[in-house]
Amino acid sequence: MDLIAVVDTMFARVDMGAFAIDELQKSERFELDFTIKRVTVPGFKDLAVECKRLIEFYNAKVALALGMPGKAEIDQVCAHEASQGIMMAQLLTNTHILEVFVHENEVKTDAELIKLVENRVRRHAKNAYDMLYNPKVLIDNAGKGIRQGFDDAGPATTE
Amino acid sequence: MDLIAVVDTMFARVDMGAFAIDELQKSERFELDFTIKRVTVPGFKDLAVECKRLIEFYNAKVALALGMPGKAEIDQVCAHEASQGIMMAQLLTNTHILEVFVHENEVKTDAELIKLVENRVRRHAKNAYDMLYNPKVLIDNAGKGIRQGFDDAGPATTE
Amino acid sequence: MDLIAVVDTMFARVDMGAFAIDELQKSERFELDFTIKRVTVPGFKDLAVECKRLIEFYNAKVALALGMPGKAEIDQVCAHEASQGIMMAQLLTNTHILEVFVHENEVKTDAELIKLVENRVRRHAKNAYDMLYNPKVLIDNAGKGIRQGFDDAGPATTE
Amino acid sequence: MDLIAVVDTMFARVDMGAFAIDELQKSERFELDFTIKRVTVPGFKDLAVECKRLIEFYNAKVALALGMPGKAEIDQVCAHEASQGIMMAQLLTNTHILEVFVHENEVKTDAELIKLVENRVRRHAKNAYDMLYNPKVLIDNAGKGIRQGFDDAGPATTE
Amino acid sequence: MDLIAVVDTMFARVDMGAFAIDELQKSERFELDFTIKRVTVPGFKDLAVECKRLIEFYNAKVALALGMPGKAEIDQVCAHEASQGIMMAQLLTNTHILEVFVHENEVKTDAELIKLVENRVRRHAKNAYDMLYNPKVLIDNAGKGIRQGFDDAGPATTE
Repeated sequence: MDLIAVVDTMFARVDMGAFAIDELQKSERFELDFTIKRVTVPGFKDLAVECKRLIEFYNAKVALALGMPGKAEIDQVCAHEASQGIMMAQLLTNTHILEVFVHENEVKTDAELIKLVENRVRRHAKNAYDMLYNPKVLIDNAGKGIRQGFDDAGPATTE
Repeated sequence: MDLIAVVDTMFARVDMGAFAIDELQKSERFELDFTIKRVTVPGFKDLAVECKRLIEFYNAKVALALGMPGKAEIDQVCAHEASQGIMMAQLLTNTHILEVFVHENEVKTDAELIKLVENRVRRHAKNAYDMLYNPKVLIDNAGKGIRQGFDDAGPATTE
Repeated sequence: MDLIAVVDTMFARVDMGAFAIDELQKSERFELDFTIKRVTVPGFKDLAVECKRLIEFYNAKVALALGMPGKAEIDQVCAHEASQGIMMAQLLTNTHILEVFVHENEVKTDAELIKLVENRVRRHAKNAYDMLYNPKVLIDNAGKGIRQGFDDAGPATTE
Repeated sequence: MDLIAVVDTMFARVDMGAFAIDELQKSERFELDFTIKRVTVPGFKDLAVECKRLIEFYNAKVALALGMPGKAEIDQVCAHEASQGIMMAQLLTNTHILEVFVHENEVKTDAELIKLVENRVRRHAKNAYDMLYNPKVLIDNAGKGIRQGFDDAGPATTE
Repeated sequence: MDLIAVVDTMFARVDMGAFAIDELQKSERFELDFTIKRVTVPGFKDLAVECKRLIEFYNAKVALALGMPGKAEIDQVCAHEASQGIMMAQLLTNTHILEVFVHENEVKTDAELIKLVENRVRRHAKNAYDMLYNPKVLIDNAGKGIRQGFDDAGPATTE
């Protein structure tokens, strides 16, 4: 049985992990081919090492690192550090960790924030699943301007 | 017996380690399940390697890295370097190191500084404890907008 | 039989991998001395670990990491993180990974974007091939101001 | 016999290594418990690997990395890279390397520069010594606002 | 017989490797104590891994990484990434790699560019040689404000 790791934070203002778990549980392979382990850490700078722990101690095949940088300028620096950590954790484990960050300043209201989080988390949960079980879906969408959270940009056209 | 590492600096203008130790000693598990080792280093760029030493040479299970970047612009660059070091130390040891930084320019007076330090250090000492012994407390607070030092931001609501 | 890895993204707005594969297939050594493995990942921050996986699990001798940072400011930070990951993946594998990034804001129209992508990808696919099979071609062009995507800058002259 | 490494540069405009050696030689433990090895490198980006070499090939117990970033903007970026290297060298060796940088633009005259260098280098040489032989001195000064080079900031007070 | 690695790029607008090789060949130890291996890569972000390959696969004792960042703003970010890679390659190999970068915007004309490149490359080739065979020359010049490319800054004086 494969394991998919879901790691989120107390710092975020939306329950990001719940959306990821809900999306993954919809798959017909859930509890047949894979199960889920969720851990919550204080803030997004704690995500990288927790993902690495789940990969190396629990043998997770892929991880979702869910975080929500705040509005302050210092939060942007911290997000950069968190991202570098996630990058390094991937390279040290040869395992994909999908970084799913929603910056609080991407939207204006709480309602928009919740909607954005749900869309981005669900689509990346689907990506994690496809990377494990349907890699051809990704090749079929190469260069298609696919985005998570907002509308897809779509492919460049000469028309 | 587990070990919790507490590392702080001579550079900081408040005795950060003392608050962390006091908070941890309040726990009923203190000296039953865990003990504490404290080391002080010159500045916050020395925190990362000292935490790694305590993890690898003394088998610390979790570490608190306590630092206070000053007001100068160069201090912000140094804080970034210190944070990157703490991130790398975590990934090389598969161990959480909670970075507890209080930037001197977050508040205006010494009295506010002391109060902010005490709150942030105590709450992160509690987080370190929970990560070791009560991980469910963290999951229960996922997405709740929990902050250390100032008031919690709270969860996003559609109301 | 050597393997050349081609990794691109769903995020890009042009099918970058297709140009790389087409260029490599034109070589007379194709399917004699080398073959190609292509993987598509969600975004350019997923390129580094996928290249490393193809090098370490499939023994790829060189990799092309194809990405297209978007126009937003945050995309520039992400591109920097993606580049640092590609750098680290190279150093951990002792293998060249040619980073082929086309920033969407380098040109104004979709037609120019497609043309720029095609030129830069094809020329770097040729570079990857030369690094494996014709290293002398590169020495012969040392200091010649060679660029990919736009016109060559050419060598400095005293005339 | 322990070894303390002193590494400085030809780029600096003051003989930083000489102050460090002079300060360390004043100790009563000099040539009883420890000796000194000095190496000079071209610039401050060469410090990190030289410190690592002295730690790994000569078994140095602590190192002083002495550098002087110039006034140009590019020097600030180089200083950042040099610092990241020193951070990484520490983490890869589990050994403290005290980074002692004096930015040429911290003062206005050559006379002030020499004075600043001497104070900062001597105090950090003392720190290196204390970290090896008197760690309690550092704990006793935790949170005291200790600085090297200029006056101490002193502890925050509510008075 | 020792090996000195010389790595340069097709991107540069001056044949940097040729100056390095010419300078090294003037030494009386050339082909007695050391020989030279040159590799050319596409751009300066490819230098780090190539230097590491020459150190680990060919046993190079020191390397010269020769690059020429262009005038565009993005080139400065790339130069930073290239430098971080060279730093990391040094730390992973315990071997000095002298980074010799000439930024195209340091001078105004092609003639000045060629002159600057020649001076900086030759002086760093000499440094590489001294680090291997005459380390005392470097100690004798500690703190002397030595620069490569332009005039030396000279030591600070109280006169």
